[in-house]
This record gives sequence, C-alpha cells and structure tokens, in this order.
Amino acid sequence: MQSVHTMSAFDEELKYLAKRIAAMGGHAERMVEQAVAALVNADPGLAQKVIRDDIVLDEGQREIDDKAIIIIAKRQPMATDLREIVGAIRISADLERVGDLGKNVAKRVVAVTDGRQPTSLFRGLEALANLALTQLKEVLDVYASRSVDKIGFVRDRDEQIDAMYTSLFRELLTYMMEDPRNITPCTHLLFCAKNIERIGDHATNIAETIYYIVTGDQMPAERPKSDKTDKIGLPAALPVK
Amino acid sequence: MQSVHTMSAFDEELKYLAKRIAAMGGHAERMVEQAVAALVNADPGLAQKVIRDDIVLDEGQREIDDKAIIIIAKRQPMATDLREIVGAIRISADLERVGDLGKNVAKRVVAVTDGRQPTSLFRGLEALANLALTQLKEVLDVYASRSVDKIGFVRDRDEQIDAMYTSLFRELLTYMMEDPRNITPCTHLLFCAKNIERIGDHATNIAETIYYIVTGDQMPAERPKSDKTDKIGLPAALPVK
Repeated sequence: MQSVHTMSAFDEELKYLAKRIAAMGGHAERMVEQAVAALVNADPGLAQKVIRDDIVLDEGQREIDDKAIIIIAKRQPMATDLREIVGAIRISADLERVGDLGKNVAKRVVAVTDGRQPTSLFRGLEALANLALTQLKEVLDVYASRSVDKIGFVRDRDEQIDAMYTSLFRELLTYMMEDPRNITPCTHLLFCAKNIERIGDHATNIAETIYYIVTGDQMPAERPKSDKTDKIGLPAALPVK
Repeated sequence: MQSVHTMSAFDEELKYLAKRIAAMGGHAERMVEQAVAALVNADPGLAQKVIRDDIVLDEGQREIDDKAIIIIAKRQPMATDLREIVGAIRISADLERVGDLGKNVAKRVVAVTDGRQPTSLFRGLEALANLALTQLKEVLDVYASRSVDKIGFVRDRDEQIDAMYTSLFRELLTYMMEDPRNITPCTHLLFCAKNIERIGDHATNIAETIYYIVTGDQMPAERPKSDKTDKIGLPAALPVK
C-alpha cells in the first residue's frame, strides 16, 4: 500500500506542475492580449496593469523551478517522469519570456500613441497578435491533451506569422519614409511587431518541448522558414528573423 | 574503493558539463565578435560564417541537456550537485540564445551595408558590443572560478550597457529623420543594437544562475534600471527595454 500511496503522491506532484504551467500559460496569453489592446486603444492604464502583472510569471517560473528540483531530488524519477519535470522547467521559461515580450509591448504604449498612427497599422499588429496568441493557445491545448500527433500545425502557423510580420515590417517602413514624424512611433511599432513574432517562436519552442516530453525524441532542429530573409544578400527592406 | 571510484566518475561528469559550458561560452563570444566585425567591415562572407556557426551552439545545448538528464537519472544527485546540473541546463540555454542574437546581427549585414551609414554609428555599435562581450567574458570567468563574491559588477556593467544603448538609439533616430534613405539601414542597426543589449541581459541571467549554483539562493528578481525608460509616459524618442 505504501508504494501505491507514494506513486499517487508523486502523480499529484506532476499534476501540480502541469496545473501551474497551464495557469502561467493563461496569464501569459492575457498579458499579450491586454498589451495589444492597450496599444490599439491608447490605454496607458491597461498598459501599466500588464507591466505590473509580469511579476506573476517571474514568480511562477521560480516556483516551478524550485518545485521541479525538489521533486527530482526526492523522487529520483526516470524516463517519462523525468522528461515531464525537465519539460516543465523549459516551458515555464518560455512562458516567462512571452510575458516579458508582452510587458515590452505595454511599455511602448505611450511612445506609440504620442504620435497617433494610421489605424491600419494597429489592425496589422492586432492580426499578428491574434495569430501568435492562437498559436500559443493551441500549443497549450496540446500540452493539456498530450496529443502530439497533430503538432505539425505549429510549423504552418509559424510560417503564417512570419509572412504577416514581413508584410507589417514593410508597411511600417513606408510610413516612416512618408513623414519623419512617423519615425519614432513606427520604430516602437516595429519592435512591438518583432516581440509578437517572437511569441510565435516561443510557442514553437513549447511545442518542441511537449514533443520531447511525450516521445523522448527531439523534433528536427531547424524548422522551415517562409519569410525568405534567412539568407543574407536579400533586399534591405525585408525584415530579418 | 568502489564508492570512491564512483564519486570520481561523477565528478568527471560534472567537470565535463562545465567544460562544455566554457566551450559554448567561447563560441558564443566569437560569434558576436565576428558578427559585429562583419557589420563594421561590410563583410558578408564573415557574416555567413557566423550564421553557419550557430548550429554548434544548438548542438551544444542539446548535448548538455541530454547529458544532464542522463546524469540526474543515473546519479540521483542532491543539493549542490543537482544545482550544478540544473544550472548547466540554464546557462547553456542562455548561451544558445546569445548565439542566436549574434546570428541575427550577422543576418542584417547586407541590409545595413546596402546603404552605407556614417562610421560613428558603427563605432557606437562596436563600443556597445565590446561592453556586452566584456560582461559575458567576466561572467564566464566567474563560472570558471565560482567566486561569486564580486558578482555585483554585473549590475553596474548592465547599467552601462543600458545607458549606451539609450544614446545609440537616439542617435540612430536622428539619422533616420535627416534622410529617408537612412531609414531602412538604420532600422536594421536599431535591431542590432537591441540584440547586443539583450546579450548583456543574458550575461546577467548567467550571473544569477551561477549565484544560485554556488549559494543555493536566488539573486533578487528585479535589477535596478538606469535607462529610465521603464516607466510608461516618457518621451517617445527613448528606447524601451
């Protein structure tokens, strides 16, 4: 009975880690959503809320790290269980970084809204954010269900994000060239777009970690790129990933 | 004797991890140095070498992760030894990211040198890169020596990097406003500057991990910021960290 009891306590610990990851994921999504909403609606109050909220993810990552190390030391897990714990450490690091990127977007709200930009630019950024957030949500769903057989969607989605980022990058440059007063706010929007594009990369990292947890194998290192800026020697007006 | 032999084999494994981290650190430093040199000297051949070299860090991180997990599973280490192994996983992730940032600078070489910019801009970027690389080298020295008592220098250095980034950011914006033809290359230089500033952040992360390995404690979460852009509501022409 003792052994069954111990196993079950261990399972509880693993479940707790997974639950904390899910909570971190939800929090990271909300931060990004609100940061983009603050930008689009020129809402510095909401931006400040997002900036304050970031500490939750910093603490979440620290708690998961500490818990994971205690579990490893106490339970000395092997194989799948060990991958589960190491995976939790990695995913929480990616989610903490997503929060940082959301916070960085929030910090740019005043700089961008000082010189109010054409609405179409915000629409572009919103669309990019929606795509990256959908990617993140779907990946977190895969984490919950562990059904990695359909994980290929991650790469397609990432290609879409890259393509949309490329088009937004060009558009922002043309606004800057049209009127020097657009340069400063559009520079901050370029960084916002880059941050959101990076959120897609972190979602892809998380997908790779989930694949590793479930299968024990690494997904191939290099994923195909569609933004065609991977090679040097391309026109300067293309973004570089 | 068996026990001594086993302990010594374990020590060898830990030493191997530390040796691999040191090698990754040297490789990451070189990549950043060469990426900046490629930018300053408009050398696309060197840029391509840096881009190719990035795979070494990807593989290094993967090897350290795999080895670390095998060691944990086989040796079931506790306390300091466990922190040493978890720390190796974290540091290799930071170094891999430094390599990515160096690669990203290298990818921008052609875009920047298409419209040749004033030399002073490159000097500013070179100075920023030197500061970030010095930071990284000093942190890797602390990793080698484990003498965390002087680790406070990391914060001062990071403040210097932030201040220099702020000044470079402003300078680049003025060049963009002077002549629309500067907009595209200067945008890429802004991203290069941001990448280099981020390398300083990763060096700080590594310092925090070393502190954790040696003491078992976390360094305080928020480090002081000197670039004065942390609060929203500041002039739009300031960069945002």
